[in-house]
Amino acid sequence: MTPAPTPTHLPLPVSPSTRRSPLEQQRLNDALVALHEQQIAFNHVLGLKVVSAQAGAVRTELSMRPDLVGHYLYGRLHGGVISATLDTMGGFALMAALGEKFAHESAADVMHRFARMGTIDLRVDYLRQGIGKTFTATAEVTRLGGRIGSTMMRLVNEEGVLIATGCGTYVVS
Amino acid sequence: MTPAPTPTHLPLPVSPSTRRSPLEQQRLNDALVALHEQQIAFNHVLGLKVVSAQAGAVRTELSMRPDLVGHYLYGRLHGGVISATLDTMGGFALMAALGEKFAHESAADVMHRFARMGTIDLRVDYLRQGIGKTFTATAEVTRLGGRIGSTMMRLVNEEGVLIATGCGTYVVS
Amino acid sequence: MTPAPTPTHLPLPVSPSTRRSPLEQQRLNDALVALHEQQIAFNHVLGLKVVSAQAGAVRTELSMRPDLVGHYLYGRLHGGVISATLDTMGGFALMAALGEKFAHESAADVMHRFARMGTIDLRVDYLRQGIGKTFTATAEVTRLGGRIGSTMMRLVNEEGVLIATGCGTYVVS
Amino acid sequence: MTPAPTPTHLPLPVSPSTRRSPLEQQRLNDALVALHEQQIAFNHVLGLKVVSAQAGAVRTELSMRPDLVGHYLYGRLHGGVISATLDTMGGFALMAALGEKFAHESAADVMHRFARMGTIDLRVDYLRQGIGKTFTATAEVTRLGGRIGSTMMRLVNEEGVLIATGCGTYVVS
Repeated sequence: MTPAPTPTHLPLPVSPSTRRSPLEQQRLNDALVALHEQQIAFNHVLGLKVVSAQAGAVRTELSMRPDLVGHYLYGRLHGGVISATLDTMGGFALMAALGEKFAHESAADVMHRFARMGTIDLRVDYLRQGIGKTFTATAEVTRLGGRIGSTMMRLVNEEGVLIATGCGTYVVS
Repeated sequence: MTPAPTPTHLPLPVSPSTRRSPLEQQRLNDALVALHEQQIAFNHVLGLKVVSAQAGAVRTELSMRPDLVGHYLYGRLHGGVISATLDTMGGFALMAALGEKFAHESAADVMHRFARMGTIDLRVDYLRQGIGKTFTATAEVTRLGGRIGSTMMRLVNEEGVLIATGCGTYVVS
Repeated sequence: MTPAPTPTHLPLPVSPSTRRSPLEQQRLNDALVALHEQQIAFNHVLGLKVVSAQAGAVRTELSMRPDLVGHYLYGRLHGGVISATLDTMGGFALMAALGEKFAHESAADVMHRFARMGTIDLRVDYLRQGIGKTFTATAEVTRLGGRIGSTMMRLVNEEGVLIATGCGTYVVS
Repeated sequence: MTPAPTPTHLPLPVSPSTRRSPLEQQRLNDALVALHEQQIAFNHVLGLKVVSAQAGAVRTELSMRPDLVGHYLYGRLHGGVISATLDTMGGFALMAALGEKFAHESAADVMHRFARMGTIDLRVDYLRQGIGKTFTATAEVTRLGGRIGSTMMRLVNEEGVLIATGCGTYVVS
């Protein structure tokens, strides 16, 4: 059993009066999606599609394809595809959280913050065979510090079977 | 955000007719508590106290003491105390899950299964300073296979602040 | 500083009289290379090339290409490419070690053993930016048990700069 | 096989003319030993003894005692003792490396730098049973950055059997 998340896990709320407008928020979300789906070249190779860019509820999908197969006998996802997907999800969750932490900033200013982000280290647990048609990755921000952020990630298939989990540490500024 | 757990995460239920009696279940719980609090010598050094031995909801408490301090300036828990506690919690969660998986077996037979258990590897993320009076550790079984089990663990203080998380892989038979 | 490796890290030597012939060993090496470069589809996407399949000294090369880029500003390797490469290297080192442990078996019999291999969990440390033209991955078998194997991996660029390290745990039978 | 370490793994050498005197270096080494053996309370509980505080070759010993036992049947080291020891060794190796990086500073100035150090995350691989009389821990600094340091650690018994390895990430300033 896991304890309920506390307010310290997530950035402090910004008062509505100083928060970026809904239009500007949409610009940020669109920029986040473009960054993950197009500008990170290898994500494009994997075919990752962002389903939700909302802070605290990020979600990405990945569709099975022959060239993502690892084990030559079983037609399951290559471990590297899984680790790349979970690595990306952790960073994505932190970007969305930073967008919330700096909710008074423009989309452009927030995007500028991501130039220095990077993964420090990553653990992946390959729990069950990566068999399925569509895989969904999620991530929880367990800490967003001034310099370092930490996340826990999960990958499930279309039947909800937990395929893999991960923990990542990232430089966030 | 984390997806809802699926039935594959936990052992299949045993039909009530073949399940061990409530008295025998209490014997198993008592044996689990004695194992963790007394027979594992180093847990006794740490002062770990089992709050719940129920499968799917294991919980242990640890009280702050001067000799558990790590950093000589700040009076916070030594990282080794945290990793030892989370390591133990992962194994404990798997023991409770095995008690449920083999719910038709006597307490003695289940306890006999634990003789070969051991940690294969462990990751700990030290998210926030280990400051507090009482720390609570929990663990989620993410996979219970025939030979290998995996868990995710959390440690919070008495105010619910998330101090550390962990991931562990264990030999379970 | 790392202590000198001990005999327990590697499989026991097989007496020359029962060891497979040089021709059969070449068949095994060729099969290992074909498995890693061709049959594991995602390795083929990455473009991994085996330089040495010798037990205790496995080595793989990876050439930089635009679609392996992660960070959209800096032209460095995607973390997922690095984790996939190190994951593969750990498994490859264990396969070569199994080929030595069962040095009396034919290449076909050894290859048959690999059908059940898989990564249990993996840690990757991204130490420096993945910048370079050619990357070399190596792996050390730290334990080869009957059921579980453990490895430590390294990735350097053509100037010998240490880009990343990893630790992996694998099912080996 | 592991590639030869490159100059980038270690801090740049300081010219002899600006380097602290041998007497001041001895003061730093003594302060490092006192910090690890006495001031970190939990290390004192474990009984860790520093054998070498030399940058690039740090080494600590731990003697078996009944209260360090984990598994109640086999008399082997508790996993938490191993993880605490490796965690400490990684930090110790980074402290010694910082002492070399800032070799022009006084012992007091270098020690002052350690006030903000802390472990971010740690992985431990428990390779073989922790059986023995005396255990030796070593650590290699794989990166010493301005803010973050990374290490790989090893624990062997008195016969040189590799008991455990670890990887750690630390805040170094």
